[in-house]
Amino acid sequence: MPETTRRADRSAPRYGSRPTMKDVAARAGVGLKTVSRVVNGEPGVTPETERRVQEAIEALGFRRNDSARVLRKGRTSTIGLVLEDLADPFYGPLSRAVEEVARAHGALLINGSSAEDPEREQELALALCARRVDGLVVIPAGDDHRYLEPEIKAGVATVFVDRPAGRIAADVVLSDNFGGARDGVAHLIAHGHRRIGFIGDMPRIHTAAERLRGYRAAMEDAGMAVEDSWMSLGATDPERVRRAAEAMLSGPAPVTAIFSANNRVTVTVLRVLAEQPRRVALVGFDDIELADLLQPGITVVAQDAAALGRTAAERLFRQLDGTLVAPERIELPTRLITRGSGELPPEE
Amino acid sequence: MPETTRRADRSAPRYGSRPTMKDVAARAGVGLKTVSRVVNGEPGVTPETERRVQEAIEALGFRRNDSARVLRKGRTSTIGLVLEDLADPFYGPLSRAVEEVARAHGALLINGSSAEDPEREQELALALCARRVDGLVVIPAGDDHRYLEPEIKAGVATVFVDRPAGRIAADVVLSDNFGGARDGVAHLIAHGHRRIGFIGDMPRIHTAAERLRGYRAAMEDAGMAVEDSWMSLGATDPERVRRAAEAMLSGPAPVTAIFSANNRVTVTVLRVLAEQPRRVALVGFDDIELADLLQPGITVVAQDAAALGRTAAERLFRQLDGTLVAPERIELPTRLITRGSGELPPEE
Repeated sequence: MPETTRRADRSAPRYGSRPTMKDVAARAGVGLKTVSRVVNGEPGVTPETERRVQEAIEALGFRRNDSARVLRKGRTSTIGLVLEDLADPFYGPLSRAVEEVARAHGALLINGSSAEDPEREQELALALCARRVDGLVVIPAGDDHRYLEPEIKAGVATVFVDRPAGRIAADVVLSDNFGGARDGVAHLIAHGHRRIGFIGDMPRIHTAAERLRGYRAAMEDAGMAVEDSWMSLGATDPERVRRAAEAMLSGPAPVTAIFSANNRVTVTVLRVLAEQPRRVALVGFDDIELADLLQPGITVVAQDAAALGRTAAERLFRQLDGTLVAPERIELPTRLITRGSGELPPEE
Repeated sequence: MPETTRRADRSAPRYGSRPTMKDVAARAGVGLKTVSRVVNGEPGVTPETERRVQEAIEALGFRRNDSARVLRKGRTSTIGLVLEDLADPFYGPLSRAVEEVARAHGALLINGSSAEDPEREQELALALCARRVDGLVVIPAGDDHRYLEPEIKAGVATVFVDRPAGRIAADVVLSDNFGGARDGVAHLIAHGHRRIGFIGDMPRIHTAAERLRGYRAAMEDAGMAVEDSWMSLGATDPERVRRAAEAMLSGPAPVTAIFSANNRVTVTVLRVLAEQPRRVALVGFDDIELADLLQPGITVVAQDAAALGRTAAERLFRQLDGTLVAPERIELPTRLITRGSGELPPEE
């Protein structure tokens, strides 16, 4: 969708502009309690009064909410966060940062997980909209977000995090996955490695594809060929990652270093490396807790998960304020943290 | 509140019994679209028809939901989870387990965090109820849950996890905090330690208080005195924990072992111990990622976070099925995992 169309959509009702029961009462010239009776189907309202209230409801586009308590307060002040996996430690600081921004704006945060399933992502996002969230921060599991267009048109602010939205123009905040991975692999090359393995998430996932692209670019920049057997993308469950790592580390010409493309992969690769007779260098994408306490410490390409969450949430509230005009892609740099494992020379 | 009163409340509307728009249409003898028009204040309905629909709404106790889409599907099938801290890795597996049980029952899970603030916990729990969750799993931040009684009476199923509910009788699922801590400290005593430090969370938190009680019981069982300076309870931020650990490890008679009473404390204590000239034994409450890869591996008293979440969620759905009659306290055992750090002898 062209961005000019998106700009036009931003004239739709914004945060702070939804009509309240008070507005209805004022327009109909009746008391708040009377509006409440009509909305809740309670008796004690003349047909004429009821008609005036219904007219006011229709004219203002007033939408009911199930809770009288919320109606009296007016606006719902709630933000929804659609995560990809409730148990991934990476999303902890990200969620907390979104929550802190929400709280600073007097809003509650409710979140849920797609469990990496695009259909569940859609179900959850729409369920949150049905519960009158003012805005949504989405970590996409799927690659087609046109299902959100009616909600966006109705005024639900939306920002995507970690991966871009699919088939719609929308704000997205993510890390420099390509550049970070390229730098991490270049670091291994600079320490003498020629045979470097890459183990990442499923290729349909944006971050995995970008990090693979960075790996390939670093190898190409150094004029080095890449063997197919050095690259493994797939589910991050320990069994799959273990098999991939063991395969690359066996045979006549095993890899001398591994680039593990996210925190889940790194944890399993560490266990495999602890069992290897030879020393193998390691750079991981994403920092992990206690990485500095291992011997050697783990060299990582770190994202700032809290900054991702904070930036996305702040963008969301600016959308709700009506101060933004066009969707943007905001890319945050990564940071290479050298602790020992990425500087080990190749052991032949 | 006496348990007999709780039983009577369980005759209130249960999951699966909330009237739908279809029920209203059937009772009023009109079509679904007509009901929709009345509910949404749209034109095209005669006053007589409108009156019949409103009567049906009132008679059935039909409660509107903002989303027509949800209305057509009927029930909301959603469970709420109130966490204490979005960034604590312990809650990851717990949340995911709750989510998996919810999904198996065809329900969505939405969650939020109290950020350890009792007022925010209340705000969030009530906000989730206002959004028509069928049930709530609550990790309490506060110690007074009477604010939930109206919701429970209205049919919202409720289970507390990790810590008990305050001032109301309710299902609670938690770990054997006392016994687990006692076993962990007894383990250190069995390996020769006499001067053992305890660093835990704030004393008002149930789990912290129970684990301290376990520490004291183990010392008493072994006939050993406890110095006040060996016990430190407070915020788990790294600065506070570091000061506490450094204090216990300094002076003429420093502790020779530390029991770190939760995962946050353990991470900081590990960093402090890495800087110490002397070898200090460590047992932590809660397992942490990579604990087995450190040198030495970290001995822990492990909870089964997934089992806590799963047990609580299954209890919730049994409440919703109407098969339970009285609240229960379910205590799950902990597990001592010996990896090295807890078996180090005292270094004098």
